[in-house]
Amino acid sequence: MRDAYHEELDAISDSLVEMARLVGSAIGRATTAMLDADLNLAESVIANDDKVDHLQRELETRAIQLLARQQPVATDLRIVVTSLRMSADLERSGDLAQHVAKVARLRFPDSAVPRDLQATILEMGHLAQRLMAKAAEVIITKDVDLALQLEQDDDKMDDLHRTLFQHLMDDRWKHGIETAVDVTLLGRYYERFADHAVSVARRVVYLVTGDYADELDPAAAAASATTGGED
Amino acid sequence: MRDAYHEELDAISDSLVEMARLVGSAIGRATTAMLDADLNLAESVIANDDKVDHLQRELETRAIQLLARQQPVATDLRIVVTSLRMSADLERSGDLAQHVAKVARLRFPDSAVPRDLQATILEMGHLAQRLMAKAAEVIITKDVDLALQLEQDDDKMDDLHRTLFQHLMDDRWKHGIETAVDVTLLGRYYERFADHAVSVARRVVYLVTGDYADELDPAAAAASATTGGED
Repeated sequence: MRDAYHEELDAISDSLVEMARLVGSAIGRATTAMLDADLNLAESVIANDDKVDHLQRELETRAIQLLARQQPVATDLRIVVTSLRMSADLERSGDLAQHVAKVARLRFPDSAVPRDLQATILEMGHLAQRLMAKAAEVIITKDVDLALQLEQDDDKMDDLHRTLFQHLMDDRWKHGIETAVDVTLLGRYYERFADHAVSVARRVVYLVTGDYADELDPAAAAASATTGGED
Repeated sequence: MRDAYHEELDAISDSLVEMARLVGSAIGRATTAMLDADLNLAESVIANDDKVDHLQRELETRAIQLLARQQPVATDLRIVVTSLRMSADLERSGDLAQHVAKVARLRFPDSAVPRDLQATILEMGHLAQRLMAKAAEVIITKDVDLALQLEQDDDKMDDLHRTLFQHLMDDRWKHGIETAVDVTLLGRYYERFADHAVSVARRVVYLVTGDYADELDPAAAAASATTGGED
């Protein structure tokens, strides 16, 4: 039997997991909407981002009430503050999925992505969804090893991002500037989405170990230097 | 004579202002480094971002200690939590200035920006720097009218972003794909930098009025829909 305080903490954790599930689904659906030029699917992703924003506002209110009523200290306090930060990462991930869906809507009835890049974009979409699913699992299990796995997955995302850029920079690029701009922004959206999933996992590691995972992982820092990294 | 608690709050507010000044200077210097292809200036912007990251870590630690020791409630609690969010906005703004400097470094000894776009990019750089200077002033003065001014400045940034895209989409674009990719990302970096400055101002409005400025300003939401908006 848990006390009211830990029930509140569990409720906050549940909201984070729910947000991660919503945005993970959103990036998958946005990717499909873009590759299939499915306007209805794109519109549903754009509309559903409200749910994520609502969950974040709710979580923020609940966390502030918890701080006010229970006045946690030490680790408990760090958990609440870190949950606020994680909810911000997840809210922005939802925005990024929405941006992908907006590109799909903008180019309808065409697909924003030329055939020879669809496989790469599909892989970026699947990887982004997988990263967010793992981030949700890390929130539930507090599994540090799984959290550190996300760093490697993020390296794969950086590789895919580079592949996309190599296509763009290839002299044989024949899809014109508008498509180059779309593909550049899409690459950025997927990369940022992955960064936020990794950031959620790192914050869990920080809670469990007291260390910043990004300081333990120079490889990730080096990769971000070549691809624009986080904003 | 102020008590220890309010002296601590002042110290947190001072750190936020210092962070805003550093990132405002960074975006100005990064813009100059890019337009003048000044490698040393670019390197100094890239190196100096550590100071901003350090200030954020310091502020986070201080805020958590304040929550633990003083256990503030109601408005005081909201101020501390909101300060943590503002520091995250400012830290990311520093990253974006660093991204601009990295584009300058990547294209050295050339400028990443073709002559016919340099005036627009210069204006975006100046506007970004002005927005952050106003955000710093809003933190100091808590001036809600000034905070709402940032929304209009952000509309100007969206206009400049559209101008940039019109150049890119113009059939007479003659600068090739690599430059189109650079310009696309630079436009995104300046727009996001402005979004974070606006976000800082909105959080101050929220503290003073209890209302979310973004909910009071549908115009900003509409503009963000056409330019990618926040991530």
